[in-house]
Amino acid sequence: MGELERTFSFVIELDRLKGVLRKTKPVGLDRYENTAEHSWQICLLAMVLADRAEPAVNVTRVVELLLVHDIPEIDAGDQIVYAGTSMDRKAREQEAARRIFGLLPEPQGRRLLERWTEFDARQTGEAKFAYAMDRLMPVLHNLHNNGQSWRENAVSLEKILAVNAVIGDACPAAWEHVLRRLRELDATGFFNFSR
Amino acid sequence: MGELERTFSFVIELDRLKGVLRKTKPVGLDRYENTAEHSWQICLLAMVLADRAEPAVNVTRVVELLLVHDIPEIDAGDQIVYAGTSMDRKAREQEAARRIFGLLPEPQGRRLLERWTEFDARQTGEAKFAYAMDRLMPVLHNLHNNGQSWRENAVSLEKILAVNAVIGDACPAAWEHVLRRLRELDATGFFNFSR
Repeated sequence: MGELERTFSFVIELDRLKGVLRKTKPVGLDRYENTAEHSWQICLLAMVLADRAEPAVNVTRVVELLLVHDIPEIDAGDQIVYAGTSMDRKAREQEAARRIFGLLPEPQGRRLLERWTEFDARQTGEAKFAYAMDRLMPVLHNLHNNGQSWRENAVSLEKILAVNAVIGDACPAAWEHVLRRLRELDATGFFNFSR
Repeated sequence: MGELERTFSFVIELDRLKGVLRKTKPVGLDRYENTAEHSWQICLLAMVLADRAEPAVNVTRVVELLLVHDIPEIDAGDQIVYAGTSMDRKAREQEAARRIFGLLPEPQGRRLLERWTEFDARQTGEAKFAYAMDRLMPVLHNLHNNGQSWRENAVSLEKILAVNAVIGDACPAAWEHVLRRLRELDATGFFNFSR
């Protein structure tokens, strides 16, 4: 296969991410969102929150990480964050990343695999901020759709706080805002469904 | 409303783009794709084709343009490229851009509106390449799904060539590849549906 044919095969393979469903419903739509549209939305979330990153980040790199961060779900599927990540799942995602980015000619394949690996390792400031955006978005959805995915998966406030506190390490302003909203909701009995 | 609340309102408003349907079905899925997942896919198309841009482009800027380029469809809806663009539609999109990016605090709102305006004007190299990616993707879909949207909308080969030749102005290698495939298909009688 020629280089351009390989490039286009990769891009067509990406269609499969549009069929990977997450646990969240977009506000106003009665269906679950897919991972492709989720990836687009959190790129914009990163662009409009980047000024509040602590420490400062290179937003264009954050966007690159977010564009590729979930591509291995084409093979490995989506998994709600509250389920945790097993070693087995890690290995499946790494194998998927090698297969899918390996469809590309070089240097493009290696470049995208490097971006995914950087996101996955969560060591750089950009990867930490990107991960914070990935965590923040479903929280915002739940705050705007009456806790739809929290209710459907019986996620307790304690678990929400524990799993998402990492947002505060990369974007403290956003996490403080979310914490305040969660406490307000808790005071109304909102989280009784999980008690 | 505080600045963060305005920022989050904007990001939640973006959910509506997930409900705007295009004319193309993703390969392997029996449904029309939406504009949000399309926007994600063409960002990746741009990243893996950027080395072939002529003249060279700043790919991070191209990606920023593509992330915002269709946001006004939240108000204006999608329209197949073969229908052309009326002045009335232009005006509706501009009004939509002002409304939606206006949900954001400054400077974020102005920045994203500038990106959208740059894409829409198609004057910079980045805007031309971004537009070429936006045109190329449905052509690739049609080449991989038996001409689904061309058949459903009775689009002739002549129209496909005329409307998409602009791809060649920003990414000649991709356009030459597509032209060769179109000629091969034409020789098999593929386009008889529109004759």
